[in-house]
Amino acid sequence: MCTEHTGRVAQQAREGTGAGFSRRTALVGGAAAAVTAALTGTARAEDRTPRAPGWGRRGLCDLTHPLTTSLPMFVPTEAPTRRTVVTIEQNGYYQQEWRLVEHTGTHVDAPGHFTAGGRLAPELRIDELVTPAVVIDISSRAADEPDTVVTIDDVRAHERRHGRIPDDAAVLMNSGWGSRFGDPEAYRGADATGTLHFPGFGADTCEWLLERRRIRSLGVDTLSIDPGASTTFDTHLLLTGADRYGLENLAHLDRVPPTGATIVVGLIPFEEGSGGPARVLASW
Amino acid sequence: MCTEHTGRVAQQAREGTGAGFSRRTALVGGAAAAVTAALTGTARAEDRTPRAPGWGRRGLCDLTHPLTTSLPMFVPTEAPTRRTVVTIEQNGYYQQEWRLVEHTGTHVDAPGHFTAGGRLAPELRIDELVTPAVVIDISSRAADEPDTVVTIDDVRAHERRHGRIPDDAAVLMNSGWGSRFGDPEAYRGADATGTLHFPGFGADTCEWLLERRRIRSLGVDTLSIDPGASTTFDTHLLLTGADRYGLENLAHLDRVPPTGATIVVGLIPFEEGSGGPARVLASW
Repeated sequence: MCTEHTGRVAQQAREGTGAGFSRRTALVGGAAAAVTAALTGTARAEDRTPRAPGWGRRGLCDLTHPLTTSLPMFVPTEAPTRRTVVTIEQNGYYQQEWRLVEHTGTHVDAPGHFTAGGRLAPELRIDELVTPAVVIDISSRAADEPDTVVTIDDVRAHERRHGRIPDDAAVLMNSGWGSRFGDPEAYRGADATGTLHFPGFGADTCEWLLERRRIRSLGVDTLSIDPGASTTFDTHLLLTGADRYGLENLAHLDRVPPTGATIVVGLIPFEEGSGGPARVLASW
Repeated sequence: MCTEHTGRVAQQAREGTGAGFSRRTALVGGAAAAVTAALTGTARAEDRTPRAPGWGRRGLCDLTHPLTTSLPMFVPTEAPTRRTVVTIEQNGYYQQEWRLVEHTGTHVDAPGHFTAGGRLAPELRIDELVTPAVVIDISSRAADEPDTVVTIDDVRAHERRHGRIPDDAAVLMNSGWGSRFGDPEAYRGADATGTLHFPGFGADTCEWLLERRRIRSLGVDTLSIDPGASTTFDTHLLLTGADRYGLENLAHLDRVPPTGATIVVGLIPFEEGSGGPARVLASW
């Protein structure tokens, strides 16, 4: 539940001696020490007070759509419902009750969603939920081709421009679909036969990223990491079969830099959960 | 939904020029620049690849209890229920449906929970959900006095030892109750008359922290920011009346340093939510 890479800072804080960690120490210790100092608010010797959080200091972005009863669902009959159970007027406080399936709104697909015996929501470690993120932009192509997928060539082109994808990264697709979230019909793209049309990750791309880049997760600004027209869910099967997780219905990916962000995946640890709603924030 | 304090880093990343942000620049620019460099993975001129996330580099702790159907509730009849709706064997994928009230497990009390017209879950800004945190330890006293509260004297003693509480902080009570979470009877402490007994924040302490320290939130490792025996919920009324939020049923507060941590409150943005389950992580 907790990891502590070194006990030094925590120990200093407990002892109230963190202020001895001076600006000079931070600088001569290099960037890593300075990060620690800034995060713990001990960068200035004369200032014992923690500073504003270092996380989110440059850019902070909410990758989460509001969870409403009118949001687009992969299976529309599974839309959540809510009711008010107590009110301030009658009870002194206000509260709602929700009924929802785990794959509602911005959410995580745990390995056990598609893979028998796969890990479930409470089993994902917190160090798997805080990861570097890269955003691959296919929005201009997707605007004309809703069935398009992120290809290996897209990944290679991204790396040529922005550098190699780091280990344990979340690889996120910006297809432009995020802006359609408020219009479930446009977001689902169902045709007359009921087949859905929206972009996702190609299965070969998923396989390549798992084998060559040791990714932690795949994320999309659509309803599914597989393209909407898929009936075999190959990308889900490959990803969850490799004990990795998916992120679906992400918001605002057009606002996140292509590389250099860190995401925190605030997954609700539902008992035996196949995944679940998550508050996902990005910082850089 | 997004804040970007300067466009420089994001722009560099988009252009793939972040690598020009050299180690020397990071050092001469001081700690703030080094933080940015490390978070964006551009601290080393020769390395264009983002590094491991800076957030959580020293210590990372999950302040969230698993959300189960057997967890302690303020109103026991409101315990959540779950059912399996599809299985891998029969449907190719596994998913559960949940029925739960917003104040279940580790969760947020939004201002509108107790204050008419107060802001609701989706209205809390992300810069309110990423804050510095201090932990006030009253566990040794609480072990003998379950009705005890965090007093102004406790706060003053904490500040004498660990420094002034920063603006916009989450002030978190470690009462030792977190370890009782798996035993709802011990956690609730109901007596023969049904009165609950567990620690919380004194109303005068809440008022003092709001006025003198401009806090962002109060958090507890118990069912309520008011002590269990309260019938008037003064701390709730004061805190939400000041447009601030509460955090209840936090886990592992005994593992977080008394000062210097940053928390991310992964609140699910429920439509018109009085609050809701949240994944809360601490880093230092």
